[in-house]
Amino acid sequence: MVEKKAFFIVVDGMGDRTVKNGMTPLQLARKPFLDDLAARGSTGLMSTLGPGIIPGSDTAHLALFGYDPDIYYKGRGPFEALGVGLDLEEGDVAFRCNFATVNDKFQIIDRRAGRLKDEGCVLASSLQNLTIDGIQVKFVPSTEHRGVLLLRGGGLSPAISDTDPHSAEKKPPLESKPLDDSPEAKRTATIVNKFVKKSLEILGFHTLNKEREKQGKLPANILITRGAGIYQKVESYKERYGITSCCIAGSALYKGVARYVGMDILKVEGATGRVDTNIEAKAKAAIEALGQYDFIFIHVKGTDNASHDGNLKEKLFMIEKVDRLVSLLKDKDAWLILTADHSTPVSIKRHSADPAPVLIYGDGVRRDKARCFDEVSAACGCLGHLNGVSLHRITMDLMGCGHMVGS
Amino acid sequence: MVEKKAFFIVVDGMGDRTVKNGMTPLQLARKPFLDDLAARGSTGLMSTLGPGIIPGSDTAHLALFGYDPDIYYKGRGPFEALGVGLDLEEGDVAFRCNFATVNDKFQIIDRRAGRLKDEGCVLASSLQNLTIDGIQVKFVPSTEHRGVLLLRGGGLSPAISDTDPHSAEKKPPLESKPLDDSPEAKRTATIVNKFVKKSLEILGFHTLNKEREKQGKLPANILITRGAGIYQKVESYKERYGITSCCIAGSALYKGVARYVGMDILKVEGATGRVDTNIEAKAKAAIEALGQYDFIFIHVKGTDNASHDGNLKEKLFMIEKVDRLVSLLKDKDAWLILTADHSTPVSIKRHSADPAPVLIYGDGVRRDKARCFDEVSAACGCLGHLNGVSLHRITMDLMGCGHMVGS
Repeated sequence: MVEKKAFFIVVDGMGDRTVKNGMTPLQLARKPFLDDLAARGSTGLMSTLGPGIIPGSDTAHLALFGYDPDIYYKGRGPFEALGVGLDLEEGDVAFRCNFATVNDKFQIIDRRAGRLKDEGCVLASSLQNLTIDGIQVKFVPSTEHRGVLLLRGGGLSPAISDTDPHSAEKKPPLESKPLDDSPEAKRTATIVNKFVKKSLEILGFHTLNKEREKQGKLPANILITRGAGIYQKVESYKERYGITSCCIAGSALYKGVARYVGMDILKVEGATGRVDTNIEAKAKAAIEALGQYDFIFIHVKGTDNASHDGNLKEKLFMIEKVDRLVSLLKDKDAWLILTADHSTPVSIKRHSADPAPVLIYGDGVRRDKARCFDEVSAACGCLGHLNGVSLHRITMDLMGCGHMVGS
Repeated sequence: MVEKKAFFIVVDGMGDRTVKNGMTPLQLARKPFLDDLAARGSTGLMSTLGPGIIPGSDTAHLALFGYDPDIYYKGRGPFEALGVGLDLEEGDVAFRCNFATVNDKFQIIDRRAGRLKDEGCVLASSLQNLTIDGIQVKFVPSTEHRGVLLLRGGGLSPAISDTDPHSAEKKPPLESKPLDDSPEAKRTATIVNKFVKKSLEILGFHTLNKEREKQGKLPANILITRGAGIYQKVESYKERYGITSCCIAGSALYKGVARYVGMDILKVEGATGRVDTNIEAKAKAAIEALGQYDFIFIHVKGTDNASHDGNLKEKLFMIEKVDRLVSLLKDKDAWLILTADHSTPVSIKRHSADPAPVLIYGDGVRRDKARCFDEVSAACGCLGHLNGVSLHRITMDLMGCGHMVGS
């Protein structure tokens, strides 16, 4: 039984640098509710993985859920696989995949095959259950040009290189190579190379691609892989902290990290993981979830998308949407904890090590001197400078399910 | 290709305690440019090696360059050797040396032989290439009474004690002793003791010393050793971060640490490592270096000298010189990052664990609430409380050559 439940809101890539008139997007945005809660709550700054370290999205969320990435991070693939709904078994190796377009010289001319719409499902149907070298090979499409590759059968290793060349230039897919001397890595690299070759054989002749070409579109004629990771089962939230937890998110990755630690994934109509997400629907789902769950993780992705596009206007719009979310959740009987997983400055369009602001609001919380919610005001907040694992510990303490060290 | 280059300025021993009217030297000094940049930039405090730890100059600079001293620090000698221009090989053991004066009772009556001027070169000529117990022994003089001893030949250890008694009282040179049970340490201590004895035999009869005695000066008739260290090659800045780097400094030690991590050493006329240093010449060299280098390390030593002498007036003068340096560099297309390697309070004339202030200035940097650049204003800065390795990581992120952890 927790003392008090919690909304744990992660606004992806919200932190930023100065972008206009010496101010950050958070300083520029109109967000009366966030500012009001900051004035009546505790604030601070968080370097999710430690000062100066640039967090990835996967490692940052592991830390925010209290799972030290140095111990628990084994590559991104398994989170993507869990996120699209696959059930994993110990030792499975998973990858992120892109449908891509190669020309007749075997050069990739588009890493996203012209950004597919929903054709992935049709294209993937003939690739879903293969066996290569005795290993079960499963490909599952997700949104647009994205998908997940899963290898199962034991004796596999994630220590192999990407076949995705990660380049906008015309280059052939890379050959996957083992990154250590183990026979498992060698074997896994061989299987992945065979899979990429096989995908070209199957997709190259797919009727849907013939149709796309007739329509002047790029054919999605190959799959390329990246982010190999091995699945290892971990102690769940329930086992660790004795609490029930759920996830409200639009994008697969965040659902995947949440599933990894044993959260239930709530289906919310209109939660898209984009700027057009239905924030009222997410708020409604979160409030309803209070009836059943102790810890409610809410992920908002649009701020990060806007930042990667260098689009200040959209970032401000998304922050104002988050203000609306907060206005709907603030008077419920639960802690409201809000932060970003990392900063993504619109000026540089990439993740950065700039610390993210943190806000904690609820009855009894210390009121520090911050009067607004932004990166500069939070620098003097009473939470000080934290990392992600520390913020998680503070959350567990506030909920009454932390562990005392000593007696 | 970096996103933006950086000037990385280390003002040695700049941090301090209150010394007059409840203010520190930084609060007392007239430094309009530093204050202006603080008002338009990010500030914070840095405990270079961690809170409460008193940093040495060598360990502090290793940390500031991103090389954790717990892993990379193997004694000071090699940095001094690199600083005077010696090329080192893996396994070389090097020492700092002083020319000293012993009386006829073999007692040291001056650890600095009356602070030699340029006579070290003449005196050293007969000591430069010896062989003791099959080991190559090389002595190289540097400024005033200082020099470097280098042992080469394998099977050597830095785990031996100093022959320098580090005392103003009349005492004989100490016998170097092995500090562990290894045969390497025993052997190295024996060689060093033989070298010290040999130096007395050679220098005692040197004609230059006879002349000095005639002139009523102290003879520089012995060499004493301290700071044994073993050289281990490390991954360079270029290999680690993919950037080009250079060093502008007057004193050997800082050039030595810079060479250790693979920086090019720029020769700047008038950069003396003393209060009389030509700060305009250093600024000019730094601006020119922008054409060729990504990371430009600028070291200013005079603040530390003034502090060790307990000379507030000179410390204020040096801070004002640094303000001039900053005025010349602030509008170039590069980050301006300025800090101290440690505090050296004039009141106690030694390094202390008081954290050093940090300033980061450049387009896009967060503007925190600090309006002046000093230890107290920086305490509420948005960089928070850092250590040296973290500040280095932040610098790499700002330059666009940090590594993301996760994806």
